Amino acid sequence: MTALHDRTVEPQVTTGPIRGSRKVYIEGPDDLRVPVRRVELSNGEHHDVYDTSGPYTDDSATIDLRAGLPALRASWVAEREPVNGAVTQLAYARAGIVTREMRYIAIREGVDVELVRSEVARGRAVIPANRNHPEAEPMIIGKKFLVKINANIGNSAVSSSIEEEVDKMVWATRWGADNVMDLSTGRDIHNTREWIVRNSPVPIGTVPIYQALEKVDGDPAKLSWEIYRDTVIEQCDQGVDYMTVHAGVLLRYVPLSAKRLTGIVSRGGSIMAAWCLANHQESFLYTHFEELCDILRTYDVTFSLGDGLRPGSINDANDDAQLAELRTLGELTQIARAHDVQVMIEGPGHIPMHKIAENVQLEEQWCDEAPFYTLGPLATDIAPGYDHITSAIGAATIAKAGTAMLCYVTPKEHLGLPNRDDVKTGVITYKIAAHAADLAKEHPRVQSRDDALSQARFEFRWLDQFHLSLDPDTALAFHDETLPAEPAKTAHFCSMCGPKFCSMKITQDVRDYAEAHGLTSVEAIEAGMDEKSTEFIDHGGRVYLTITDQHTPGHAPPESEDRPH
Amino acid sequence: MTALHDRTVEPQVTTGPIRGSRKVYIEGPDDLRVPVRRVELSNGEHHDVYDTSGPYTDDSATIDLRAGLPALRASWVAEREPVNGAVTQLAYARAGIVTREMRYIAIREGVDVELVRSEVARGRAVIPANRNHPEAEPMIIGKKFLVKINANIGNSAVSSSIEEEVDKMVWATRWGADNVMDLSTGRDIHNTREWIVRNSPVPIGTVPIYQALEKVDGDPAKLSWEIYRDTVIEQCDQGVDYMTVHAGVLLRYVPLSAKRLTGIVSRGGSIMAAWCLANHQESFLYTHFEELCDILRTYDVTFSLGDGLRPGSINDANDDAQLAELRTLGELTQIARAHDVQVMIEGPGHIPMHKIAENVQLEEQWCDEAPFYTLGPLATDIAPGYDHITSAIGAATIAKAGTAMLCYVTPKEHLGLPNRDDVKTGVITYKIAAHAADLAKEHPRVQSRDDALSQARFEFRWLDQFHLSLDPDTALAFHDETLPAEPAKTAHFCSMCGPKFCSMKITQDVRDYAEAHGLTSVEAIEAGMDEKSTEFIDHGGRVYLTITDQHTPGHAPPESEDRPH
Repeated sequence: MTALHDRTVEPQVTTGPIRGSRKVYIEGPDDLRVPVRRVELSNGEHHDVYDTSGPYTDDSATIDLRAGLPALRASWVAEREPVNGAVTQLAYARAGIVTREMRYIAIREGVDVELVRSEVARGRAVIPANRNHPEAEPMIIGKKFLVKINANIGNSAVSSSIEEEVDKMVWATRWGADNVMDLSTGRDIHNTREWIVRNSPVPIGTVPIYQALEKVDGDPAKLSWEIYRDTVIEQCDQGVDYMTVHAGVLLRYVPLSAKRLTGIVSRGGSIMAAWCLANHQESFLYTHFEELCDILRTYDVTFSLGDGLRPGSINDANDDAQLAELRTLGELTQIARAHDVQVMIEGPGHIPMHKIAENVQLEEQWCDEAPFYTLGPLATDIAPGYDHITSAIGAATIAKAGTAMLCYVTPKEHLGLPNRDDVKTGVITYKIAAHAADLAKEHPRVQSRDDALSQARFEFRWLDQFHLSLDPDTALAFHDETLPAEPAKTAHFCSMCGPKFCSMKITQDVRDYAEAHGLTSVEAIEAGMDEKSTEFIDHGGRVYLTITDQHTPGHAPPESEDRPH
Repeated sequence: MTALHDRTVEPQVTTGPIRGSRKVYIEGPDDLRVPVRRVELSNGEHHDVYDTSGPYTDDSATIDLRAGLPALRASWVAEREPVNGAVTQLAYARAGIVTREMRYIAIREGVDVELVRSEVARGRAVIPANRNHPEAEPMIIGKKFLVKINANIGNSAVSSSIEEEVDKMVWATRWGADNVMDLSTGRDIHNTREWIVRNSPVPIGTVPIYQALEKVDGDPAKLSWEIYRDTVIEQCDQGVDYMTVHAGVLLRYVPLSAKRLTGIVSRGGSIMAAWCLANHQESFLYTHFEELCDILRTYDVTFSLGDGLRPGSINDANDDAQLAELRTLGELTQIARAHDVQVMIEGPGHIPMHKIAENVQLEEQWCDEAPFYTLGPLATDIAPGYDHITSAIGAATIAKAGTAMLCYVTPKEHLGLPNRDDVKTGVITYKIAAHAADLAKEHPRVQSRDDALSQARFEFRWLDQFHLSLDPDTALAFHDETLPAEPAKTAHFCSMCGPKFCSMKITQDVRDYAEAHGLTSVEAIEAGMDEKSTEFIDHGGRVYLTITDQHTPGHAPPESEDRPH
């Protein structure tokens, strides 16, 4: 950790609880302490929320960025014996061994630990947890669990710094990023990553080819297996939890991209295509894939098999290049699993809504249900500046269909490097997409938050509503823009409708009236109508008869049960 | 129009072309001139975009808000004879008569005019065009046509003014609102609407019960059919094109809402429920529905049958109250059509993704395919402050399933009255949802814009990319945040990746290389490999053999066509 201590400028990160909540730990077996964010409500109840923010939101924690976070998992890893020569969660799961990571995750997800173990053993879920990243809190990626989101950060040659990127990492996890990828391509890649890994409460992913390319001054033709391998080892040693490897971009697939409107839009994919063509050889990632497996297995680093040929436009969606690569990723999935290495599969990109489900179906079929990890997809190309939204539509759709993790897209996509605000917008947007999909999958636990918030809304507990939301600060600020006074926080209306037109206020009046007059059932209403309103009923009946007499030929008559009586 | 001239403060609205485009008119028969927004590209091509912005974006137009817009349709309406006693587009279409509005729409949508006429005659599309609103440019709402979006504006008792609302109307149509609803509930409702209608290039909708309630000092119990009727006539006279009528909230449905988590969340629905219960009578909107039909037919005002019992939370989605009302709306649809009055049906609300399609199916079945017009729906309740996004997910999903028009939701939903920025964000977000659905429905014309933008992106024509986007100002501003210098507008990279990591730049290098070396097909690649890389092939083969030897029992072997050869 010398790198951290050498640095003269220390990053500043956001600490302290999120508005309206505090960190609580659920105690489990083996002294496990699983964090949740507890939202205390004004009616005396509370609601616990899945929490990715680490010690930064714990008022009782001391944060020392130079020292890094406490090594939560150090003893777990140290005490474990290899099984069949491997130390991966996959190897343990296959051997029927339940790790502490699995127990932790079972508490975190509220599921049986056997579901965790069996899904990992089946390869349908992964636990990205490098033995050298003991600071991270265990989490799982798989379609049977909560949909996860990944936030990309990282500087480029023309923008940002280590300080900004560490701040972005903490900021992203504060708002709910389950994983963070450091995609730095500028100077100081190693040191930037060291700061991020040592201080990250969530798994960290990278794309090692970026750093390898920096080592050859940015000329893809000069890359080699040896340079790449050494880079991977360096990153494994450092504690990276999962790595994007574009090993499916084969030489013979490169011409397939020539027909495309937008060619190859994956950085890694384009680098490997350039290397293959310049050297007229098959990709060294493919030909040396087994050696890569041996390296990743030693640390329990998870493969994220990259979709280097993902479509970069609606026009190129689900085309030959994309699908050829996906088949190869299926082949590589089997190789990795044969080596007891965990695998997930990356997915597109730009896909119109009606072609999204096919992506999941083919991925599951060809890649034997390895967890799918998709970038969006963007459901249209026409909204640069709003691609968090174009992609949230695609992301919710693909997650509903079975995608396990969503890589966020920020408003700056296609236009520039995201800043802090963009990171937050991307994270919140993707928490929405993930939650919408969890609801659609009828996950047993997720609707309770919608219910709690809606009940608070209906009962005009404004602060509870804000605190239960994904972004309490913004909800409060928007409310206060028009009604800043404190009494408005308990008022039975807002500026949208004003007091006379608040439907929820009127509804409560209606309920009060109905209860006072015993009109709380259809029977009571109808009895009352019989007594008081025979005149209306006659009239109502007349309305209906007039309709049937007049209805246009070819149109179905109204449903009989709807007739006024 | 005296109201406009009396006013001392004149609204200020945004005029002038949208960045990178100019107004052009497509000439048609009968001297029709249909506006498009022409984006001139730097490569000499151009791309025409459907244009809702009216004369405000026409540099050659003179804007005089006190005089209102030119009465485009005045002579069309004046010259037409009634058919079967009716002057509605539905009556004409049923009689086989093609109106100028239909011809205009056929050009605007790029479809055969017979499709327009037959869909209107069938009741599957509506043309909201009050004879007293000749300023509006004809447009159509129906599932066979482009998905439309509606923007809600209007002041409340605690916020905004006439000036702000006229500005919002022009601003909303500038960015693509196909329709605008004036939902004002505060003071000066009549005058606010007069300013809006006279200056609106798009159809205007209202909810007459709001103004009726103001006339009885906000006490729902004091409403009466007579007050309501007079309000409707006043608004029809003024030129309102469609009206939300919550005639499906029947007395006997009110108790069904008692079981709900969030009761009745429609303002109109709650007002009518309160009236029904307080007076213990069936809704006067229902019992007088035929008289309403007679009034609306005279002006050709379109019914928008309101979903007063739409769910206000995920918990209440697709419940008995909602579906009971929908059946009644189906009954009323037949009554309206029997009177030659056009009808569309309003829909929810808050619906989780997996329950969205059912809404469209039931609406089409029970309401005989009357155009569905939905508010979102929001796919989760947990993100106040971001409900434009939660609802865009639902909106794209429901539009893909067949919804004809989407009512936007702004970031302020549930929190306050939207300001100008919120209106724009809502409109752009809903243009995204509508376009994503149009793509998913494989509408023949819509993908050309995605293609043109993606091609500009791939060719580093940055300004073309911005100009083809839904919001050129924001795209440009985001790009310039990190690379403001002029040369960056033609640079072959952006700040996201920097020059060395730009996949599109590398792809172009790859293409250049491939062309120079004749490596543009799979065959050429493979021939080259045979000559130069037998060593690799042996190696690749070896990799594969190793895999099959080792593959885990129970896992499928890799697909044979993917084997390295």
